[in-house]
Amino acid sequence: MEQILLSLFIIFVGAKLAGEIFERIGLPVIVGELLVGMGIGSYLPSLLRPREVFEVIAELGVVILLFTVGLETPINELLKVGKTAALVAILGIIFPFVLGFGLLFILGFSSIESIFLGVALVATSVGITARVLADLGYLQRKESQIILGAAVVDDILGLLILAIVSGSQTGNFTLLNMGILVVEVIAFVIAFIYFGSRLTRIHGTKLDRLKMNEAPLVVAIGATFGLAALAGFIGMAAIVGAFLAGVIFAEVNETYSLRKQVIPIYELFVPFFFVVIGAEIDLGILADPRLLALTAVVIIIAVLSKIVGCGLAVINLGRRTWLKVGVGMVPRGEVGVIIGLLGLSLGAITKDLYSVIILMSMITTLIAPFLIKFAFKEMTPMIPDDSA
Amino acid sequence: MEQILLSLFIIFVGAKLAGEIFERIGLPVIVGELLVGMGIGSYLPSLLRPREVFEVIAELGVVILLFTVGLETPINELLKVGKTAALVAILGIIFPFVLGFGLLFILGFSSIESIFLGVALVATSVGITARVLADLGYLQRKESQIILGAAVVDDILGLLILAIVSGSQTGNFTLLNMGILVVEVIAFVIAFIYFGSRLTRIHGTKLDRLKMNEAPLVVAIGATFGLAALAGFIGMAAIVGAFLAGVIFAEVNETYSLRKQVIPIYELFVPFFFVVIGAEIDLGILADPRLLALTAVVIIIAVLSKIVGCGLAVINLGRRTWLKVGVGMVPRGEVGVIIGLLGLSLGAITKDLYSVIILMSMITTLIAPFLIKFAFKEMTPMIPDDSA
Repeated sequence: MEQILLSLFIIFVGAKLAGEIFERIGLPVIVGELLVGMGIGSYLPSLLRPREVFEVIAELGVVILLFTVGLETPINELLKVGKTAALVAILGIIFPFVLGFGLLFILGFSSIESIFLGVALVATSVGITARVLADLGYLQRKESQIILGAAVVDDILGLLILAIVSGSQTGNFTLLNMGILVVEVIAFVIAFIYFGSRLTRIHGTKLDRLKMNEAPLVVAIGATFGLAALAGFIGMAAIVGAFLAGVIFAEVNETYSLRKQVIPIYELFVPFFFVVIGAEIDLGILADPRLLALTAVVIIIAVLSKIVGCGLAVINLGRRTWLKVGVGMVPRGEVGVIIGLLGLSLGAITKDLYSVIILMSMITTLIAPFLIKFAFKEMTPMIPDDSA
Repeated sequence: MEQILLSLFIIFVGAKLAGEIFERIGLPVIVGELLVGMGIGSYLPSLLRPREVFEVIAELGVVILLFTVGLETPINELLKVGKTAALVAILGIIFPFVLGFGLLFILGFSSIESIFLGVALVATSVGITARVLADLGYLQRKESQIILGAAVVDDILGLLILAIVSGSQTGNFTLLNMGILVVEVIAFVIAFIYFGSRLTRIHGTKLDRLKMNEAPLVVAIGATFGLAALAGFIGMAAIVGAFLAGVIFAEVNETYSLRKQVIPIYELFVPFFFVVIGAEIDLGILADPRLLALTAVVIIIAVLSKIVGCGLAVINLGRRTWLKVGVGMVPRGEVGVIIGLLGLSLGAITKDLYSVIILMSMITTLIAPFLIKFAFKEMTPMIPDDSA
């Protein structure tokens, strides 16, 4: 147990120190945390043992992160950007998929390998973008809400595509299964956004009648665990459930200063997520020049296809918004990694292509904070982070 | 992962609901959480799998608990009651040990078995007492500080006795090892209480010059992980390190409202500790009438020996203080369990005596909150829990 406490100490202090240094020299804090993770992954991997323990702590971190982000995204704000977000998500799926599939197909890869790269390019890691926007204090900007809404839709559509692709590989895919999944997902999202928000709006102000300490926060966290688990069981990402829990409790965020209360938990756990993600980054595969060239092309496609595709959806909002929304959808993070792992385990892709997908996911994750900071640069935060 | 999120949901919501009900009917909240743990342990043990994950979450809970308790125990307050606390601890060790050893020796048990029961009766679970006092808002009372100080000394002396007993069983015990341990422990406690408090008093107010969010809380939590790990490596309980971290940061508690900030983390994690402790309680061994009789006698000795022994040390402070301090030292909690497990694994005690020790630890834990609430009953809280 003291070994685990020592690991928690080293990881926590390391991440916070790196964040402090990166903040002072004007670089994204999250990149500092990812680099600490890369260092630990390369030189002290035993710090992250037992693996299950740190995976759960990291999961708690990203669940709390998405809940906090949801708290700043009330349902009426989200609905205002709903259509735009959906369009951003759809074009942000079509462009990367077609370009990724096309590239490999032209290069002579098999069609299933080409499909897997296409799917890996589709995913957006909402965790990375949300964290960068939160760090900069831009969560309540219209562009941010479009990005977050689109990332959630993206997650849901990405899940459906993944179900088709892996189902067709394993032979488990039927139209009936597909239909059930679609209905489940739609019912979940609609039920929780509409009824959940109504519930908190009408009955939320009675939460302080409970005798327990910090009742509103406790109920919100309970709901977050419950919705995250439920989303996971349906087959969605658990963090989508956590985000929706935040959206629901956004209705009573100001009444109970929920965000202020959740910040200590956030500051304690969120860094563990980024350190664990960082520890998975292995730049060793860059040593093979052939893979390096392919990876470089794939990364360029990964960045441009999202900027062009997602940007097209907001073309009428001006060039600046185009850029902001586009770069916000760039990071593939853990979602790309999961698709790569799935392809490898199904025997659908080679170890080489797997390495390319992992590297693409990781490099887009590392560069996205810089791109986002750059795209939003001229903007002064309207709602400064109240904890700064 | 969704399985673990579901477990977190059920445990968290179950513990909070039980706490709410117990609060409303005027029973100690912690007993509600322990009962939820007993229910899960008996009927849904798979909720606490993988075991390592929930052990770490529970450990985080008790570390945060003792840190929070330390925050309300500034060093000068602790030193004021220092001599009394040391006397309480010493008499609270001699009485239970002699009575426990004597009972078994007279009943014809071997001397090593008698010694192990004596040692198991010595331990005080500071976590239980601290939680009950915190729930009632009495942490800053003089009696509470005597109890907490004595519990820390008790933990340290208990460790030394345990080192002698288990060392003499395994043949690893030498006077040199013993001396090294004593020096380490004394150096640790003195260094961190004196230099640590001085450090935060002099330099603590500069913490907000850091650029990171919530810098004072982040630094305090980092120090807590570090001191808990260090205490563990020296051979002390990790929670003693966490308590000392709290004592050190008590100097700047008011400047940065540290306690207010740590409460959300506390409300999230502390219940997991008591649920996990509760899940270990197995009342099944009560079915054997012979063991039941012995257990009943041992429990009576466990309660009375602490009340009489610890009470004697504060005899000059009045009968009321005697009772409060005495019952505050009654719960044996996880410390008794650990000693029982050690005795069993060394082959020093039989499975029957092991069951008696476990049951004694658990029943003192379950009744102590009632005893403490009763002893402190007439007192109105001077410093009401600001989060209530």
